[in-house]
Amino acid sequence: IRVGYPEVIYCEGKTVEQVRDIIKFMNTKDSNILATRANEEIYNAVKKICKDAEYNKLGRTITIRKKEEKLTNDYIAIISAGTSDLPVVEEAAETAKILGNRVEKIIDVGVAGIHRLLARLDKIRGAKVIIVVAGMEGALASVVGGLVDKPIIAVPTSVGYGANFGGLSSLLCMLNSCASGISVVNIDNGFGAAYNASIINKL
Amino acid sequence: IRVGYPEVIYCEGKTVEQVRDIIKFMNTKDSNILATRANEEIYNAVKKICKDAEYNKLGRTITIRKKEEKLTNDYIAIISAGTSDLPVVEEAAETAKILGNRVEKIIDVGVAGIHRLLARLDKIRGAKVIIVVAGMEGALASVVGGLVDKPIIAVPTSVGYGANFGGLSSLLCMLNSCASGISVVNIDNGFGAAYNASIINKL
Amino acid sequence: IRVGYPEVIYCEGKTVEQVRDIIKFMNTKDSNILATRANEEIYNAVKKICKDAEYNKLGRTITIRKKEEKLTNDYIAIISAGTSDLPVVEEAAETAKILGNRVEKIIDVGVAGIHRLLARLDKIRGAKVIIVVAGMEGALASVVGGLVDKPIIAVPTSVGYGANFGGLSSLLCMLNSCASGISVVNIDNGFGAAYNASIINKL
Amino acid sequence: IRVGYPEVIYCEGKTVEQVRDIIKFMNTKDSNILATRANEEIYNAVKKICKDAEYNKLGRTITIRKKEEKLTNDYIAIISAGTSDLPVVEEAAETAKILGNRVEKIIDVGVAGIHRLLARLDKIRGAKVIIVVAGMEGALASVVGGLVDKPIIAVPTSVGYGANFGGLSSLLCMLNSCASGISVVNIDNGFGAAYNASIINKL
Amino acid sequence: IRVGYPEVIYCEGKTVEQVRDIIKFMNTKDSNILATRANEEIYNAVKKICKDAEYNKLGRTITIRKKEEKLTNDYIAIISAGTSDLPVVEEAAETAKILGNRVEKIIDVGVAGIHRLLARLDKIRGAKVIIVVAGMEGALASVVGGLVDKPIIAVPTSVGYGANFGGLSSLLCMLNSCASGISVVNIDNGFGAAYNASIINKL
Amino acid sequence: IRVGYPEVIYCEGKTVEQVRDIIKFMNTKDSNILATRANEEIYNAVKKICKDAEYNKLGRTITIRKKEEKLTNDYIAIISAGTSDLPVVEEAAETAKILGNRVEKIIDVGVAGIHRLLARLDKIRGAKVIIVVAGMEGALASVVGGLVDKPIIAVPTSVGYGANFGGLSSLLCMLNSCASGISVVNIDNGFGAAYNASIINKL
Amino acid sequence: IRVGYPEVIYCEGKTVEQVRDIIKFMNTKDSNILATRANEEIYNAVKKICKDAEYNKLGRTITIRKKEEKLTNDYIAIISAGTSDLPVVEEAAETAKILGNRVEKIIDVGVAGIHRLLARLDKIRGAKVIIVVAGMEGALASVVGGLVDKPIIAVPTSVGYGANFGGLSSLLCMLNSCASGISVVNIDNGFGAAYNASIINKL
Amino acid sequence: IRVGYPEVIYCEGKTVEQVRDIIKFMNTKDSNILATRANEEIYNAVKKICKDAEYNKLGRTITIRKKEEKLTNDYIAIISAGTSDLPVVEEAAETAKILGNRVEKIIDVGVAGIHRLLARLDKIRGAKVIIVVAGMEGALASVVGGLVDKPIIAVPTSVGYGANFGGLSSLLCMLNSCASGISVVNIDNGFGAAYNASIINKL
Ligand SMILES: Nc1ncnc2c1ncn2[C@@H]1O[C@H](COP(=O)(O)O)[C@@H](O)[C@H]1O
Ligand SMILES: Nc1ncnc2c1ncn2[C@@H]1O[C@H](COP(=O)(O)O)[C@@H](O)[C@H]1O
Ligand SMILES: Nc1ncnc2c1ncn2[C@@H]1O[C@H](COP(=O)(O)O)[C@@H](O)[C@H]1O
Ligand SMILES: Nc1ncnc2c1ncn2[C@@H]1O[C@H](COP(=O)(O)O)[C@@H](O)[C@H]1O
Ligand SMILES: [Mg+2]
Ligand SMILES: [Mg+2]
Ligand SMILES: [Mg+2]
Ligand SMILES: [Mg+2]
Ligand SMILES: [Mg+2]
Ligand SMILES: [Mg+2]
Ligand SMILES: [Mg+2]
Ligand SMILES: [Mg+2]
Repeated sequence: IRVGYPEVIYCEGKTVEQVRDIIKFMNTKDSNILATRANEEIYNAVKKICKDAEYNKLGRTITIRKKEEKLTNDYIAIISAGTSDLPVVEEAAETAKILGNRVEKIIDVGVAGIHRLLARLDKIRGAKVIIVVAGMEGALASVVGGLVDKPIIAVPTSVGYGANFGGLSSLLCMLNSCASGISVVNIDNGFGAAYNASIINKL
Repeated sequence: IRVGYPEVIYCEGKTVEQVRDIIKFMNTKDSNILATRANEEIYNAVKKICKDAEYNKLGRTITIRKKEEKLTNDYIAIISAGTSDLPVVEEAAETAKILGNRVEKIIDVGVAGIHRLLARLDKIRGAKVIIVVAGMEGALASVVGGLVDKPIIAVPTSVGYGANFGGLSSLLCMLNSCASGISVVNIDNGFGAAYNASIINKL
Repeated sequence: IRVGYPEVIYCEGKTVEQVRDIIKFMNTKDSNILATRANEEIYNAVKKICKDAEYNKLGRTITIRKKEEKLTNDYIAIISAGTSDLPVVEEAAETAKILGNRVEKIIDVGVAGIHRLLARLDKIRGAKVIIVVAGMEGALASVVGGLVDKPIIAVPTSVGYGANFGGLSSLLCMLNSCASGISVVNIDNGFGAAYNASIINKL
Repeated sequence: IRVGYPEVIYCEGKTVEQVRDIIKFMNTKDSNILATRANEEIYNAVKKICKDAEYNKLGRTITIRKKEEKLTNDYIAIISAGTSDLPVVEEAAETAKILGNRVEKIIDVGVAGIHRLLARLDKIRGAKVIIVVAGMEGALASVVGGLVDKPIIAVPTSVGYGANFGGLSSLLCMLNSCASGISVVNIDNGFGAAYNASIINKL
Repeated sequence: IRVGYPEVIYCEGKTVEQVRDIIKFMNTKDSNILATRANEEIYNAVKKICKDAEYNKLGRTITIRKKEEKLTNDYIAIISAGTSDLPVVEEAAETAKILGNRVEKIIDVGVAGIHRLLARLDKIRGAKVIIVVAGMEGALASVVGGLVDKPIIAVPTSVGYGANFGGLSSLLCMLNSCASGISVVNIDNGFGAAYNASIINKL
Repeated sequence: IRVGYPEVIYCEGKTVEQVRDIIKFMNTKDSNILATRANEEIYNAVKKICKDAEYNKLGRTITIRKKEEKLTNDYIAIISAGTSDLPVVEEAAETAKILGNRVEKIIDVGVAGIHRLLARLDKIRGAKVIIVVAGMEGALASVVGGLVDKPIIAVPTSVGYGANFGGLSSLLCMLNSCASGISVVNIDNGFGAAYNASIINKL
Repeated sequence: IRVGYPEVIYCEGKTVEQVRDIIKFMNTKDSNILATRANEEIYNAVKKICKDAEYNKLGRTITIRKKEEKLTNDYIAIISAGTSDLPVVEEAAETAKILGNRVEKIIDVGVAGIHRLLARLDKIRGAKVIIVVAGMEGALASVVGGLVDKPIIAVPTSVGYGANFGGLSSLLCMLNSCASGISVVNIDNGFGAAYNASIINKL
Repeated sequence: IRVGYPEVIYCEGKTVEQVRDIIKFMNTKDSNILATRANEEIYNAVKKICKDAEYNKLGRTITIRKKEEKLTNDYIAIISAGTSDLPVVEEAAETAKILGNRVEKIIDVGVAGIHRLLARLDKIRGAKVIIVVAGMEGALASVVGGLVDKPIIAVPTSVGYGANFGGLSSLLCMLNSCASGISVVNIDNGFGAAYNASIINKL
C-alpha cells in the first residue's frame, strides 16, 4: 500500500501452504518481500517457488530482494546483552535492512558487565536511532538511555524463566525506566522496533 | 547536565518544602525549569520565591522560563479522544513546548467517531512526530497508526474503571497494535512521550 | 431440550470415542447436530458412523443436517481483520448457519486500514446484529461500534504473542470500549457469539 | 449525533463546573439529557441552571426530560441479587427508561436462594431482553441463562472484597458461563448494559 | 504415619522408575496404597510388581487394597456438571473410597439446567458432606450451597479456555460465593477435597 | 430461613440508615442477630433502637441476643499468629459463638516461633474443627495441618504489604498447602470460616 | 528472644494505644527498641512515656537506646537512586544501626547516570554486604551486581506509577537479574534487608 | 572474568552445537566449567569433546574440573521438603561445590511433618548459610527462618499445579515471610541461590 515499502508477511499461525501462496502472489509484483516468524519448513516451500529467497535461521526471516535498495547513511544501532536475545536482534536487523537502513549490531553488552558497554559508547552514540533488545530484567535500556541522547526503541524479550512470566519482567522494567527517551514495543517484537526505527532514521 | 535542556523536577511523593527548595536552587542557574505532577499548594509555594512561575492547572505543570526558546518549524501533533485525557495531553504539551517544540493539539477525535478523526488528517499528517493519548481501550493509536507514516508515541492513560485496571487495558492494547510505527511509554506518562517526541522532532 | 434447536457438542477434552458415541446417540433423533472444536481424527471417526457429516477444517466444526433449515431474511454480519482470526470466524459462521441464520462475512477489514472498513459500511449496516472477531489490540469492535447502531457481539481472540497474554489484551480492550452497543463473550468463543447473535436476529 | 437519542454525559473525572457547563449547552437543544456517575454536588449545580433536573441518588444519575418519550411495549428485565448491587441496577434502569424502554426490576433473587428466582420466572421470561447485575461470584447470569431463551446482558459489579479483586471474580465467572445467550459488559457498567439492551429491545 | 490410613503417592513429576520403586517399598507393608496423577505407563510398571493394582483411567489413580475397608454409613456426595470434570470427580471418588467412605456421585447437574439439580436434591441433602466439582464459571457450588445445610468442599477445575485462565475463573467464583458453608481447595485437587471430606465424614 | 439460625446482616456498602432499618425489622422477630463489618457509627444508631446490642470493636460485629443459646460441648479452635490478624479472629469468634459453638482462641502462635505453637498442641488437637487465620505468607495453616488430623478452615488475611497484594500471597499459600485436611475461604472472611466450622462442629 | 537483639515492633495496622502499651512493656527490660512504620502521632504518644525515644521522620522509625552498642568495623553500604526511595533507605539504615552495624549511604546513583555510580565504586566495594534500594525499573541492583563481588540484598520500592503496579516492576526486575550475587526481599522492606545484611555483616 | 571462578554456561535456549562450541572454547583455559539446564543430548555432545565432563542427571548440570578445589570448612546447608524439588536442590549443590563450598543436604523435611525438621536442627544450625528450596506453599523458609539465626536464601520452585501458577504461590509466600533473615531468588534458580550462598560462606 505504501510505495517503496517491501511486502511483509507474518507467518505465525499460518499453514505452510497459506504462506507459500501469499508469497507466490506477492512475488508477481515489484516490491521486495519480508516474511517473519518463518520456520525451515516454510522456507523450503518458499525456496521451491522462488530461487532468490534467503533464510536467516536465527531470526526466522525470509527475504526476497527484487532490487538492491540504497542504504541510508545514518545507521540504526541494535544493542543486546547476549546470545539468547539474538533471534530478536536478527529479526530486527533483517527488517531494518530490507527497509533500506544501515545497521550496526552491538551484541555483547549486558548491564552485569557495564565496562563492555562503555567501551562501545562511540559506536552507539553515532547512531541516529537505537534499538535495545533485552530479556530477563531488561535494565539495559535504562543504562543506555542514561548514556545517549538519541531516540531508543526498547524491545523486551521472553528470554528467561520463573518470575520472568514470559517477558513481563522485562516489559515492565522498560516501561518504568527512569531514563528519558525510551519507548517500548511488544515482547519479542523485533520487526516492530525496526519498523519504528526505520521511520525515524529516514526523517 | 545536557546543555540547553530545561531542569526537570517530578513532584509526586515530594513535600512542598522539598520541591520549593529544589526549585530555589535550580533558579540560581540559567536553564528553564519544568515541574510535573505539581498540585496547587506546590505552585503557591513556588510562586512566592519565583514571580515568573506559570501554572497549568489541568496538566499540573509549573514552568519557569529564563529565555524565550526558539520553537522548531516541524511540529509535534498531540492527539486524544476527549476531556478525560486532557491532563496527560497538557503535561505532554507543556513538556514539548519548554523543550522548544511547536505543538499542535487535536483533542476531540475518539475511535467511536472516526469521521471527526478523518476530518483532521491533514493536520495530523503534517506533523513530524505524533503523540497519541488514550485511555479505556486505547484503540486510537492503532487507527492513527494505520493512517499516517510518522513515528507515533502512544501514551495509555488510567482513565476508565472496572476492567480498565488502572490503565492496563489501554497499555496492552497499544503494545499489541497491529499497525506499524507505534511505540509505547508508561501509563499517564505525558512527560516521557513528549521528551521522546522532542528528540525525534529535532533529529 | 429446546424444540427446533440443533444438538451441540463441545469436543475439547473429550476422547474420540466419547465424541463418536455421543453423536451416534444424538443421530438417532431428528435434530441437526453441531460439533465444535473437533479435530480431523474426530471427524474421521464420526464420518464412519454418519455419511452426511460435513467438516469445516478451519473452523474445526462438524455439522450434520437432518432437515434443511429455512434461513432468516435478516442477516448476521461477521467482521474480522485477517487470516489469523478466521478459525473463530468460521466457528461463528457455522454455528449461526445451523441455527438458521443468514450470514455475511466481511473478513479483511482491520483498524490499521480504516478505508477498507469504510468501503464495506453498507453491508455492515444492513445486518440486524453484528459479530466482531479480533485479536491483538481488539480495536475493531470500537471502530465498528462508532459507525453503526446495531447490537455488536465482540469476540476477542487469542491471536498474538507477548503482551497479548493469551487474548487478555483484546478482551480488556473490548470490555473498555467507549463506543456504546458492544457486549463481549469469552476469548475465541465463536460459538457463543453466534448463539447470542442468533437469539437477537430472530427476535 | 443520533436523532431521537438523549445527550449523555459521563461525570466521573470531570469537575462540577465542567459538567454544569456541558449540560447548560446541551440544554439549549431539544434532546433529553442523561448524566451518569453524578454526585450530589454536581446535581445541586445542575439543578440551579435547570429546574427540571431529577436526581436518582442510588443510581447517581441526573435526567432532564424535554418531551415525554413513548415507552416500548416490550420490556427489559433487570435482575439482581440484593441491595449492594442496586446502584448499578438503578444506573441501568434510568438509562433504559430515558432511552424509551419499559423496564421491570426483579431485585431480590440471588443464586443462594434459587426458589425466589424460580418464583419470578414468568416475569423474567416475559422480557424481550434481560440484564443480569451481579457481584461476588456472578453466578446469577449462568442460572438465568439456563432458564430463559432471551438475550442476556451480564453486568459484573465490584461489590465484594478479598479475592473479588475489584469485580474480577464476577467478570471472569460471567465470561466463562456455560449457559448460552450471555454476553458481558464492563464491571459496574449499568449504562452500557442498558444501552445494549435498548438497541435489542427496539429491533 | 497415621494408623489405618493408606499410603499415598503423588506421581506427577516423578519418573516411572521412581514411582515403581516407592510402591514396591510401600507394598512390603500392610496399608492400602493410593497413587494419584498416574498415567498408563506408570500403571503398567506397577502392575508388573503388584498383580492386585487397579487402575482408574479417567481419574488416573492406582489403588492397591490389602484389606477390604469397612465403609462408613454416612456418605460423601460428589456433584459435578458434566463429562469434562469427570477426571477430578474420579480422583475424588477413588480417594474417598480408599479412605473408607461411602460415596454417591451426582454428575450431570450443571447450573445451566437447574431442574436436573433440583430433581436430585434428596440424594444431595442425604449426604453428611458434599464435594462440588466445577470448571468454567464454578457457579454450581453457590447454587448447591443455597440448597443444603451441609459442609461443602468446592473443587475448581481447569476445564475451560480463554478467560478461564487455567481454572482461575472457577477458583475466584467459589472463593467469593455468597452462599455460606463453602470452602475451597486447589484447582483440580480431587484428592485434597476427598481427604477433607473424609475427615469430616468420620467425625 | 433456617430455623434456629441467627439473622445475619453484612454492613459493608450499606448506609447507616439502611442497616438500622433492616435490624429494626429483624428485631421484631425471635432470632438472634449478627451484623458484620459494622463501624461505630452504625453501632451507635443500632444501640438507639435496641438497648441489648453489643459491639465487638476489634471484630466490627454487632450481636443482639434474644435467648441464651446452649453452647456445644465440642469446641472450635481459632488459631492466629498475632495482633494484626485479630479483627478476623474476632469476626470468626463472634460468628461461631452466636451460632452456638464453644470457642477456644490460640492467638500468639506464628510459624516463625514454632515452639509456641507446639506448646499449645493439646488445646489445638482437642478441637473438633480448627480455623487458622493468617496473613503475610499464610504458612501457619500448613504447619497446623501437619500436626493435627482435624478439618481445618484456613482464612487468609489481607494483613501485609508489597508482594502481599491484598492477601493474595496468603491465599495462594493456603490453597497450595501440601498438608492434607485444609480448605480455604475468601481473604478476611472470618464469618464464612466460622459458619463452615459451625456446620462441621454440629454434625 | 535472642540475646543482644533489640525488641522490634511493626506499627502498621496497630492503634496508637496498642503501640504505646507494647513499647511501655518492652521498656521495662534492658534491650534497645526499634519501632518501624510509625507515624508522628505514634511517636508523640511514645515520647510521653519514654523521654529517650528518637524519631526518624523520613524513615518512620522510633528508636530507644538503653546502651550504646559497639558498631562493627565492617560496614553495610546502602545504595539508592534518589530522593523518592529515601524512606526505605532510612528504615534500612536505622535498623542496621540499632543492630550494631556501621552503615555507609550512597544515595544519588541511579542507572540513568552511570558515571555517578562509577565514581563511588570504592566506597561500595569496601562494604562487606550491600543493600540496593530501587523503585521504578529497579535496574540499579543488576548494575551494582555486575561491578562488585559482595552479597547484595535488593529492596524493590513501590515508588513509581502506572505500569509500576505498586512495586511489581521493580520486584520482577530484581528477581530476574542476570548479575549473580543478588537476592531480594519484599517491596519497601528496608527493615528485612537490613536484618539480613546485619546477620551477614556479623558472620 | 573473576580469577578462581569457574566458567558458567546456561544452556536453556541454546542449541546443542552452540553449547558444545562454547564449552570447547572454555576448555582451552584453566578454569573449571559448570553448565546448567543441560539435557542429556547436550551432555553427550560435550562428553565427546571432553572426556572429563560429568553429568548430574537430576540437577541437569555438567561439570568439568581442571583442578581439585579445596573446599571450605564452613558448610552451606541445602534444605528441601521432598523428591519433587530435588532438581533444584541438585543444581544448587553442584554450583556450590564447584565454587568450592562444603555442602550438606537435608532433603526430607517438609512443613507438614515438622518433627522431621526439628530432628535435623543441629545440622541446620551448624551451617554458615542456608538454602531453602520449596515449591507449593513455600512455607519451609519461614519455619526454618524462625528456628535459626543464619542468612537464608530461599528458592521458590515451580513444583505444583493449579493455583501454584508456575511457582508464584511459593515466591509470594517467601517474599512475605514474617521470619527475619530470609531473602529470595528467582523461581527454580538453584544456581543463583548457591552463588549467593557461596559469596556469603567465604566472607
Ligand atoms: N514479528 C512480527 N511481530 C509483529 N508484527 C509483525 C511481525 N512481522 C510482521 N508483522 C506485521 O504483520 C503484518 C503482516 O501480517 P499478515 O498479513 O498477517 O502476514 C505486517 O505488515 C507487519 O505489520
Ligand atoms: N456509566 C458509564 N460507563 C461507561 N460509559 C458511559 C457511562 N455513562 C456514559 N458513558 C459513555 O460516555 C459517553 C459520554 O462521555 P463524555 O463525553 O466523556 O461525557 C456517552 O456517550 C456514553 O457512551
Ligand atoms: N492429586 C493430588 N494433589 C495434591 N496432593 C496430592 C495429590 N495426591 C497426593 N497428594 C499428596 O501428596 C502426598 C504424597 O506426595 P509424595 O510423597 O510426593 O508422593 C500425599 O501424602 C498427599 O498429601
Ligand atoms: N463478613 C462477611 N463476609 C462474607 N459474607 C458475609 C459476611 N457477613 C455476612 N455475610 C453473608 O452476608 C449475608 C447477609 O448479606 P446481606 O443480606 O447483604 O446483609 C449473610 O447471610 C451471610 O451469608
Ligand atoms: Mg537518553
Ligand atoms: Mg503507521
Ligand atoms: Mg454503536
Ligand atoms: Mg439461555
Ligand atoms: Mg449452605
Ligand atoms: Mg492434617
Ligand atoms: Mg556480583
Ligand atoms: Mg532467622
